Amino acid sequence: MEIIRKGGRTLKQYTLERKKEEQERLEQQIRFIVEIDKVKNVFRQTYLTDGKRKENDAEHSWHLAVMAVLLKEHMEEEVDVAKVMTMVLIHDLVEIDAGDTYAYDDKGAQTKREREVKAADRIFGLLPEDQGSYFRMLWDEFEAYETADAKFAHLLDNFQPFLLNDVSEGKSWIEHGVHRSQVCRRNEHIPETSEIVWEKMLEVMEKHIEKGTLIRD
Amino acid sequence: MEIIRKGGRTLKQYTLERKKEEQERLEQQIRFIVEIDKVKNVFRQTYLTDGKRKENDAEHSWHLAVMAVLLKEHMEEEVDVAKVMTMVLIHDLVEIDAGDTYAYDDKGAQTKREREVKAADRIFGLLPEDQGSYFRMLWDEFEAYETADAKFAHLLDNFQPFLLNDVSEGKSWIEHGVHRSQVCRRNEHIPETSEIVWEKMLEVMEKHIEKGTLIRD
Repeated sequence: MEIIRKGGRTLKQYTLERKKEEQERLEQQIRFIVEIDKVKNVFRQTYLTDGKRKENDAEHSWHLAVMAVLLKEHMEEEVDVAKVMTMVLIHDLVEIDAGDTYAYDDKGAQTKREREVKAADRIFGLLPEDQGSYFRMLWDEFEAYETADAKFAHLLDNFQPFLLNDVSEGKSWIEHGVHRSQVCRRNEHIPETSEIVWEKMLEVMEKHIEKGTLIRD
Repeated sequence: MEIIRKGGRTLKQYTLERKKEEQERLEQQIRFIVEIDKVKNVFRQTYLTDGKRKENDAEHSWHLAVMAVLLKEHMEEEVDVAKVMTMVLIHDLVEIDAGDTYAYDDKGAQTKREREVKAADRIFGLLPEDQGSYFRMLWDEFEAYETADAKFAHLLDNFQPFLLNDVSEGKSWIEHGVHRSQVCRRNEHIPETSEIVWEKMLEVMEKHIEKGTLIRD
């Protein structure tokens, strides 16, 4: 058996080396998997539909990934749903270090970018290099908000808390005294991403203005 | 413009009908999206890595989907990672009605199947028919535990709480007095699914037996 050689090594040596490499990759992946468990303790400003507690980033990301499969058909542009799922699953991991910045917190938004880039370096850096680079590329694409996939991911990221907020009687909007113009500014790219989703959002906003849970301006 | 006709209708009528259909699909999808929010309140027996609280099904499913992307490379057979991601994202939705049955609860396991099938009928039935059938097909495939994709999904479903349990000092195993033979029986298909993951699990089990957090039998 010692006759078969790869790069001067016997097949047995080669197989052992490959196995060691695979084991090292698995150890790195496990360190990452264990680290990102922390995102289950990063709480957002959105309430669950029952209004009893706020949701965390892991639950939120899970919800977006399921929605990606279902709402793909309403997008104006072609999207790569598997890529968008991965994008939304990892888009909030930086908040393990940087914390959650509420959508309508203008002060927090100023330092957000710097805090999050540092977090991305550390967290994605735990993975084997190819996988870390892939996740970082997805996060950068999400942040740049330019491609059809990133626009779909942002639509999900905005529409999900919007729906939870609707069902929980506008609880989060009331707490933060949110104005209609703030919601429109935050969602300014939704009309070009999906007309039908935007029309639904306009309808829901009108309802909340009538109920007094969203402030007209 | 009234010259262009599709099936006896004017283009305008046709466009309006298509839009109405799309709106109806969106309403059904929203009802489903809102309904599955409840899975965030279905708590499992596994503790988060910090050992402070148990995790819920939404957090668990999120974790599995991220792991699917990372651990695909260690599987013995070819898998469709996008399909497996969707499978693990929705595999626990039946627990909204049926509740969580602990992995080592033999009594609960007897009635589990019936409770879960009824739940699947109701919950996937909220969706537009094509999407409901797709999710149901994925859930059935997961439950049958036969295809390479289902085996990968089960590996994730078992390996994730196994890792959390390891990091949280075997807390869940201690609480339930779990024996090594129970873990081996539950994971009997892991060796054929991924040799390298199974070797890691054996190593972790040995460590916990030495620490006394897993019972040797």
